[in-house]
Amino acid sequence: MNKISKAVISRLPRYYRYLDELKAQKIERISSKELSKMMNVTASQIRQDLNNFGGFGQQGYGYNVQYLYDEISKLLGLDVPHKMVIVGAGNLGQAIANYGNFKNRGFEITALFDKNPELIGKKTVDAEILDINYLYDYVKENNVEIVALTLPKEPARKVAEKLVECGVKAFWNFAHTDLRFSGDIIVENVHLSESLMKLTYRISDKDKSEK
Amino acid sequence: MNKISKAVISRLPRYYRYLDELKAQKIERISSKELSKMMNVTASQIRQDLNNFGGFGQQGYGYNVQYLYDEISKLLGLDVPHKMVIVGAGNLGQAIANYGNFKNRGFEITALFDKNPELIGKKTVDAEILDINYLYDYVKENNVEIVALTLPKEPARKVAEKLVECGVKAFWNFAHTDLRFSGDIIVENVHLSESLMKLTYRISDKDKSEK
Repeated sequence: MNKISKAVISRLPRYYRYLDELKAQKIERISSKELSKMMNVTASQIRQDLNNFGGFGQQGYGYNVQYLYDEISKLLGLDVPHKMVIVGAGNLGQAIANYGNFKNRGFEITALFDKNPELIGKKTVDAEILDINYLYDYVKENNVEIVALTLPKEPARKVAEKLVECGVKAFWNFAHTDLRFSGDIIVENVHLSESLMKLTYRISDKDKSEK
Repeated sequence: MNKISKAVISRLPRYYRYLDELKAQKIERISSKELSKMMNVTASQIRQDLNNFGGFGQQGYGYNVQYLYDEISKLLGLDVPHKMVIVGAGNLGQAIANYGNFKNRGFEITALFDKNPELIGKKTVDAEILDINYLYDYVKENNVEIVALTLPKEPARKVAEKLVECGVKAFWNFAHTDLRFSGDIIVENVHLSESLMKLTYRISDKDKSEK
């Protein structure tokens, strides 16, 4: 398979979400035209994007929803389970732990970690909040693959560096700082305030053009 | 000023964050080369990006941190206050309400709304959780500009439509659905699970190339 462009990859989760909804509605086939209407993108972009993976659609016959869902699921690595823990059990950490869809998609959130004694011992839907002192042993013993960092930026960097030494290969980083590592550690930064700034940019831009 | 490209705009919040850190460290001037090292992008991209706004840098002299910060702040619409409320006072809604940096950047989060009687009356750092039945009157009476939607996807669409009728012009949408409106309503969708899927894509892609 040819290397898929970053732009296409960034659109895959959205296809996955829409296909999931179609499956829930028991829809078995969909044309690029219908999907285009639902997703508010052109049918030609859909055909081009999905052609990257080859042979999903048949002319005049549409896409097989289940097949396309399964293939995109494999591409996104969602066909295998992923062990994840959350460091920082405040509101954001708990929000992620309690988000039911992660479980359906193969994410096993086995524990949260915090240093706050008021939180330690509490339970979320499927996991327990543990003392952060156990984090490094836990990660090693349980082969944790992904760590979500929902703690302030100051401790986040240090904790992440120690976790890399313990064998963690991937970070889902909500701390307000960019994490960077040498080697092949994978980091996906989510800076919530930056998306809010994109919103205010658009408000400000609209206001200026209306004046 | 020429129309700034989407790609540049999407990078502005990151410049803003780094400039904020430089200011905190009392650094007054910075060269594109130093900034490039900090931000892990090329100096030439930085010069190109910042040239869009004209006249911030001087050859051999670097950028004035405060001036650049102020100009980007204006571009991002952060020089004026923004009234925001949050609909859905679960963990995610409370996480946003308690995030102190929003206040520093001119976001006035005046209230959260929920239908859960156990949450109504509770307080976050600066705001109170109110009964969702008061939402529409509150928004009209207080000229709320931005609504953050941190509630499940089923009610999110209906609530948003009613809020548009009440004059809300911008949504920061965390509900697991794409909101779309006719007219000039601004929506910034934040789908957390999609960023997690980008992470698993990269894990899966790395695993395949190692085999």
